[in-house]
Amino acid sequence: MLTLSQKAIELPASPIRKLVPYADAAKKRGVKVFHLNIGQPDIDSPKCVMDAIHNVNLNNLAYTNSAGLESYRKGLANYYNKIGIDADYSDIIVTTSGSEAVLFALSVICNPGDEVVVMEPFYTNYRAFAIQNGVTLVPISTKIDDGFQVPPIEEFDKYITPKTKAILICNPGNPTGTLYSQEGLEKLAQIVKKHDIYLLSDEVYREFCYSDTPHFSAMQLKGIEQNVLLLDSVSKRYSMCGARIGCVVSKNKEVMAAMMKFAQARLCSPVVDQMAAEAALDTPKEYFDAVKAEYIHRRDVMVELLNNIPGVYTPTPMGAFYTIAKLPVDDAEKFAKWMLEEFNYNGETTMVAPAAGFYATPGTGTNEVRLAYVLKVEDIRHAIKCLEEGLKAYPGRTV
Amino acid sequence: MLTLSQKAIELPASPIRKLVPYADAAKKRGVKVFHLNIGQPDIDSPKCVMDAIHNVNLNNLAYTNSAGLESYRKGLANYYNKIGIDADYSDIIVTTSGSEAVLFALSVICNPGDEVVVMEPFYTNYRAFAIQNGVTLVPISTKIDDGFQVPPIEEFDKYITPKTKAILICNPGNPTGTLYSQEGLEKLAQIVKKHDIYLLSDEVYREFCYSDTPHFSAMQLKGIEQNVLLLDSVSKRYSMCGARIGCVVSKNKEVMAAMMKFAQARLCSPVVDQMAAEAALDTPKEYFDAVKAEYIHRRDVMVELLNNIPGVYTPTPMGAFYTIAKLPVDDAEKFAKWMLEEFNYNGETTMVAPAAGFYATPGTGTNEVRLAYVLKVEDIRHAIKCLEEGLKAYPGRTV
Repeated sequence: MLTLSQKAIELPASPIRKLVPYADAAKKRGVKVFHLNIGQPDIDSPKCVMDAIHNVNLNNLAYTNSAGLESYRKGLANYYNKIGIDADYSDIIVTTSGSEAVLFALSVICNPGDEVVVMEPFYTNYRAFAIQNGVTLVPISTKIDDGFQVPPIEEFDKYITPKTKAILICNPGNPTGTLYSQEGLEKLAQIVKKHDIYLLSDEVYREFCYSDTPHFSAMQLKGIEQNVLLLDSVSKRYSMCGARIGCVVSKNKEVMAAMMKFAQARLCSPVVDQMAAEAALDTPKEYFDAVKAEYIHRRDVMVELLNNIPGVYTPTPMGAFYTIAKLPVDDAEKFAKWMLEEFNYNGETTMVAPAAGFYATPGTGTNEVRLAYVLKVEDIRHAIKCLEEGLKAYPGRTV
Repeated sequence: MLTLSQKAIELPASPIRKLVPYADAAKKRGVKVFHLNIGQPDIDSPKCVMDAIHNVNLNNLAYTNSAGLESYRKGLANYYNKIGIDADYSDIIVTTSGSEAVLFALSVICNPGDEVVVMEPFYTNYRAFAIQNGVTLVPISTKIDDGFQVPPIEEFDKYITPKTKAILICNPGNPTGTLYSQEGLEKLAQIVKKHDIYLLSDEVYREFCYSDTPHFSAMQLKGIEQNVLLLDSVSKRYSMCGARIGCVVSKNKEVMAAMMKFAQARLCSPVVDQMAAEAALDTPKEYFDAVKAEYIHRRDVMVELLNNIPGVYTPTPMGAFYTIAKLPVDDAEKFAKWMLEEFNYNGETTMVAPAAGFYATPGTGTNEVRLAYVLKVEDIRHAIKCLEEGLKAYPGRTV
């Protein structure tokens, strides 16, 4: 009999993407859809990236080394060194996107039935990669009502069992914008050291920190060098999500040797995209300054507009480019679908990501959505206006 | 304690790639290395592919649909229709390489402990993807001494157990060049139907068939439309291995819906590479005619040269661009390493892939290597000359 695997059945449809067919249908009806559902910035990729693609000097798109182009790995090591991270190019394996970086990390360290501790809400696809490896995510709950404040790090201890292989953090955090302080990370390092588990640190939003102190990386923690795996991606940093280039960085030679076997099995990452990512290393500082200023502006506008809507609440995120908002609705997924299927305001509507998929605890986040502030301020104004009008008209409104 | 997962331990280093560091060291010593170890053709990618990259008209390398660019999927459907395969674009999910196509297929249909029947020797990375899914590959042995002849298809029946989820074929076959006849495939279809299991058909070498009859696809089999998953890639067809674009094609909507969830979890395939693959669909027939004639020439030269070496035997492959050769050595892996570490002939040496990694049955293939005839005839002559001289000098020679 033709059956599906257990993991194919368990795997949830992506809350970021599963409503895409409804958005497509709305567009076919002539409705303009503002995509706040996905972290796809409207900001141009740096000119040096597009130039590198236009000038690709190859006659044959050949395989590269499974660990990535050596020149790119050396360039990456230099990038990390400049921001205070001690990494040699031999500590780096280029991956086909940050997604593959997370997948490889879990595959290399976790057996089915193992546990990974993660702050909740978390990036929804962690769940997919956990299911693919038979891993149980053990959530530490944070609440929207206190701004998703990280609980005292000491409490993390309570979540560690003999099955715990790792703590997985996202810093700055998707979807909450949470930033870990150096002090917080140092306390976390003590826990990691005490239990001798791995610390997986997803830092793909490193360049999007809105506090006054510079980003502190898990790779900068002393005494747990063998425990840390840095998971990274060029997608957000250089607004090149479609290039699918990430990497894993670790001083743990045994882990990296094992990961190399996974890398070899899929042969290599795409070569033109690696060349574009290498060129991206030359992106001028002005690009980041402008982008950061723009995101702070977008965040401020979105947060203010949201909090002005009766019954809506969102905290102010301190990093990345997402915010979670609580809506006065019976069910955020039903509302999100309704916005695409049934509603428009002057021919426009807004697509959001229902937040329940970002929680592991059943029944939580069901009246929350994740919004990405990745559009121009003018578009954000329109998008939030649609949301406001949609909330007025939505039959499942609760207050 | 920091441990590795069971699958990280079980996963073998790639026989195609694990000796690369020795090849790199040889190059650093000034030795020229002929790479017969990997199916990396020296043939240029079609001009339309490189033009598409140079003319990429995007300001932002954005995510694409998780199933692939719609225009590319429609182009692919048209390509399949032209070669007699009934496929609508909605039957196609673009994958990040043929590797991901195999990985997704096994992930969607197999639970840990399930079995997949495969002809031995088989493409070595099937083993890696099986291990990643906890799947046992059940090999049907074929032997070099009778030219890797496929056993009577009726015998496949004996290998099916209640745990068998699929038969996985590679047609034309890597590493043996085996071609399945239409008649053979129709018998296979009866077995597939009788047990109602999946048929996974890896056809990435479709354009490299050297018999007089056109390639017959598993997608053309009648009565098992729901059972067949076609696994494909542009890597070999258009000599664009470094683009990492493949696809899965199936009429089974349930399977494809499940696969879409895996595709969404990793967001999308690289956009520039998809655009290049779409452009590749316009590759003129003359390109394929010239490439095919060139490969037949290369094959003929390599097979003749190999069989002229005392103690060496290789059959004549009828498809793809590999051949397995039996060598008069104690251990083909030791020999392959020795060729890189200890030997050169006039400053040149040859890198081959030890074939044991292409077998699941322990102890088989240990005196065989896989050779890819992907270099110019003149280079093949040099490479096989090195092999011949190396065999004379190798201390572990057996005859």
